[in-house]
Amino acid sequence: MVKSEYSDTHDGLETRETGDMISSRKVEGTAVYGRDEERLGTIESFMVNKLSGQVEYAVLQFGGLFGIGSDYYPVPWNHLHYSADRGGFIVDLDRSVLEQAPRYNEAESGIDPTFGRQIDDYYGMYYPPI
Amino acid sequence: MVKSEYSDTHDGLETRETGDMISSRKVEGTAVYGRDEERLGTIESFMVNKLSGQVEYAVLQFGGLFGIGSDYYPVPWNHLHYSADRGGFIVDLDRSVLEQAPRYNEAESGIDPTFGRQIDDYYGMYYPPI
Repeated sequence: MVKSEYSDTHDGLETRETGDMISSRKVEGTAVYGRDEERLGTIESFMVNKLSGQVEYAVLQFGGLFGIGSDYYPVPWNHLHYSADRGGFIVDLDRSVLEQAPRYNEAESGIDPTFGRQIDDYYGMYYPPI
Repeated sequence: MVKSEYSDTHDGLETRETGDMISSRKVEGTAVYGRDEERLGTIESFMVNKLSGQVEYAVLQFGGLFGIGSDYYPVPWNHLHYSADRGGFIVDLDRSVLEQAPRYNEAESGIDPTFGRQIDDYYGMYYPPI
């Protein structure tokens, strides 16, 4: 028997966050805030490297903020920081960077290797790897 | 071949798996098979290290196989391997190890640091880190 939906779950999942770890079910649907603490949207899902188990991208969904409500924005995980105070993630990117960021919509197939490089190139341009 | 009741749900998400990456939403609910290819259950969720973004544990749910249908078994991620052929994960642990493994139920609070050490000690006993 699989617990079916997320609807009533997120309040009850506070206990799923302990110490340094967080449940996948708590990440999904969790609010994302900008640097100015404005609520931008939510994390729809995230992409995991199957071999290493490393989370590579959080897929952000903005509630029509930029007039493109149903698009998905994959953002490198290291630009997101969980805030227990806010009960959500803070994204440390300028809004202008997000507005121009690579995205896909429901009709598209998600993140293929070419798109993965495009994402890495885009964010690397603004925030080069150290 | 065991027919998975999740196959319908997950067919639509095939596009979420590309190259080395897999969507969090595809991992959840996906079938888990034993070494003998018997279907054991599903991945209910997984635990991510908030700082590093590393997936530490997959939380397995067994469909009453061991007579304990509603318990959750956190298993270190590196014991799971995705099989595109099976459309699910293979867990490379003996059934006897899983039967005795650390678990929690819905009334409990998930994985606190003490329980995390218990999990690591248990699997480390059978499969010491290299």
